[in-house]
Amino acid sequence: MRAEILCVGTELLLGQIIDTNAAYIAGQLARAGTDVLRKQTVGDNLERIADCISGALNRSEILIITGGLGPTTDDLTREAIASYLKVELEHHAELEANLQAFFDKRGITPGATIMRQAFLPKGAQAIPNPVGTAPGVFVQTKEDKLIFAVPGVPREMKALLDGFIIPTISERESGERQIIVSRVLRAFGVGESTLAEPIEDILTTSKNPTVAPLIFGNTEVHLRLTAKARDEEEAAVLLDETEAILRARVGDYLFGRDGETLASVVIGLLRGKGSTLSLAESLTGGLAQNLICEVPGASDVFVGGIVAYSEKIKTEILGVDSKTIEAHSAVSSEVAIAMASGALEKFDSDFSLSLTGEAGPNGSSGAPVGTVWIGLAAKGSTPFTAYKREFFGDRDAIRRRAAHAALDILRRHLLALPIT
Amino acid sequence: MRAEILCVGTELLLGQIIDTNAAYIAGQLARAGTDVLRKQTVGDNLERIADCISGALNRSEILIITGGLGPTTDDLTREAIASYLKVELEHHAELEANLQAFFDKRGITPGATIMRQAFLPKGAQAIPNPVGTAPGVFVQTKEDKLIFAVPGVPREMKALLDGFIIPTISERESGERQIIVSRVLRAFGVGESTLAEPIEDILTTSKNPTVAPLIFGNTEVHLRLTAKARDEEEAAVLLDETEAILRARVGDYLFGRDGETLASVVIGLLRGKGSTLSLAESLTGGLAQNLICEVPGASDVFVGGIVAYSEKIKTEILGVDSKTIEAHSAVSSEVAIAMASGALEKFDSDFSLSLTGEAGPNGSSGAPVGTVWIGLAAKGSTPFTAYKREFFGDRDAIRRRAAHAALDILRRHLLALPIT
Repeated sequence: MRAEILCVGTELLLGQIIDTNAAYIAGQLARAGTDVLRKQTVGDNLERIADCISGALNRSEILIITGGLGPTTDDLTREAIASYLKVELEHHAELEANLQAFFDKRGITPGATIMRQAFLPKGAQAIPNPVGTAPGVFVQTKEDKLIFAVPGVPREMKALLDGFIIPTISERESGERQIIVSRVLRAFGVGESTLAEPIEDILTTSKNPTVAPLIFGNTEVHLRLTAKARDEEEAAVLLDETEAILRARVGDYLFGRDGETLASVVIGLLRGKGSTLSLAESLTGGLAQNLICEVPGASDVFVGGIVAYSEKIKTEILGVDSKTIEAHSAVSSEVAIAMASGALEKFDSDFSLSLTGEAGPNGSSGAPVGTVWIGLAAKGSTPFTAYKREFFGDRDAIRRRAAHAALDILRRHLLALPIT
Repeated sequence: MRAEILCVGTELLLGQIIDTNAAYIAGQLARAGTDVLRKQTVGDNLERIADCISGALNRSEILIITGGLGPTTDDLTREAIASYLKVELEHHAELEANLQAFFDKRGITPGATIMRQAFLPKGAQAIPNPVGTAPGVFVQTKEDKLIFAVPGVPREMKALLDGFIIPTISERESGERQIIVSRVLRAFGVGESTLAEPIEDILTTSKNPTVAPLIFGNTEVHLRLTAKARDEEEAAVLLDETEAILRARVGDYLFGRDGETLASVVIGLLRGKGSTLSLAESLTGGLAQNLICEVPGASDVFVGGIVAYSEKIKTEILGVDSKTIEAHSAVSSEVAIAMASGALEKFDSDFSLSLTGEAGPNGSSGAPVGTVWIGLAAKGSTPFTAYKREFFGDRDAIRRRAAHAALDILRRHLLALPIT
């Protein structure tokens, strides 16, 4: 079966919103094995919406519509489906009761037109909406084509797509009602092709779950595992099996899953040891500390740090010997170590990370743009060490990569993994 | 005249890419006064692309196609236009010469299929591409409809849209070749409705430039001015006039234009005075310093700062009296002032900003989530002051708003504007 997507909303034709729904739907359908033939976007106009529905169902067996299901009079998706089907809208008492209960529970008086959401085209079925008021609409036409309509709010669209539409389509395709469950394994410090090399066979042949690499935000490579299964439990078994194989082959580049970040992983490791952390940053100017403090509960392990943006601060506050800077320059192993050591002492923490380097665009330090030294000091384990990194990209990319690299060095140290 | 947009590319139907081109094109057309009737997305398939072209031109007078103009054999937009027009592709010697020159200049040997880009549908005109190899395609059909095709690479699409397509359409619409020039005025510390109130008449009646408010990134409100003019110079005069009126009415909430940030404006003001800055951050954990260090040349004025995430660091490193914390709590005017004062002394800077507050989600400080005190210390001008702010939103929003608010307080101080 082939599918089409129709996005309804005049705001989408005015360029006021970048449509992310269509890409999500297309991605989930692709993962479910259903081809998307065409996407259309149309404004809040009854005749035009109905024309798009008609065109899509002339070409394809499945149509997913987003938007136009709200309570206001310019929400016309219900009417357009009815018009296409040449049927009336029908009032559903149980939908009205649900809507009333939703508002009663919250002590809200809804707008006058809210009960438009209790109407469906005759013969249609409501798709329950667990996260909002507007139910979705599901129609199976006489020609056995499937129309699904969901709200345009991304959170609601996703809930109805993943919870109802994908399982319904898979039941049609394979005779079995299936859900799609994805898991993301996050890697740092490795390029996409290097990561892919030892798992090439899995990337190309594994069918359930499928595994796809994806570059993420200038800093990470992700492996997205997508399983089809009857339920969450069966999916978890499939995902666990493949994750174990991937981990065995790819190894310690993989630092976390799904919502875990390098910072949250490092915080978790430090918390487990009852250890504290401080930082001394130069080129990253607070970015590495900010990555840590973005994580709720960071204060359990992170005590603080210094941004030493000028040489004077490196010497006067962090206690770096000015002769060390003169002899080796500010971007050097020696200065990185002295900064980490200074922070360790100053903040009386168990671990300290330091960053010094040249972010560009016009280097004043003398070092080539992209050169970064990261120092790591651990209480009671001298001599301390520093690691050199050479990053490509613009100022922003170099600073982001450097901040993440520092966190990864600490992660590897805490897990006793090799650091190169 | 009414327009449609057609995006070509199988990757768009697989959900691998979020399409930002269509929103940009729709926005520019809206600003030029041309309605967009429908958007379509289709894969790299000759027949389907031609079918979309045909459908669009049955409904509308203008069609803008993005994508499918590259050199590879799955780039089929040229062929699809030719198929729709029922004409052949024609080789253009001058396009081949341009392509050859492009590669010769860079010492690159192009792929074998590159010269596909030297072919155009018979009767079509090449749109010169100043930023890439693929020329655009412009066709005026026998029925007087306009087809424009541009590459899918956003930078190239924008260059051809703004430089050729919009002027060509405006010439058709009004008999005069016009360009569209936008300017963004950035405001901080004011809600959209409060900003709009004193300029309501301009927002609703000003036609050239039009003025539209826009919420930006959780922290700012922008006013987008869009002028239509014969050239840049005429546009600048129109924009300057309206900007002057807006500034007179909205006043000191407006901190900058276009790419200027609060941080870059503050750095510029400090640089002008030859003054230096340091920071002491608690809840923002390095975020405010990072906003500053994102700006190239920040080291001219920013010497460094401290992230004092624990009480111990506030007392031991910043020199905040522990009795002050006991008496007033860490989230207080007194502690904010002591932090700023401590940083001023420690870093020997001309100005210091401090931030202490409760970002949540689970407050450990005792203060309500969202409460922030911002301290400002200026060398030689005691007593120092602190300002209270109460932000709504999640942890991330509170931290971002707090960091920006600190920069805005310093901006206002440096410009001798009122701070409330």
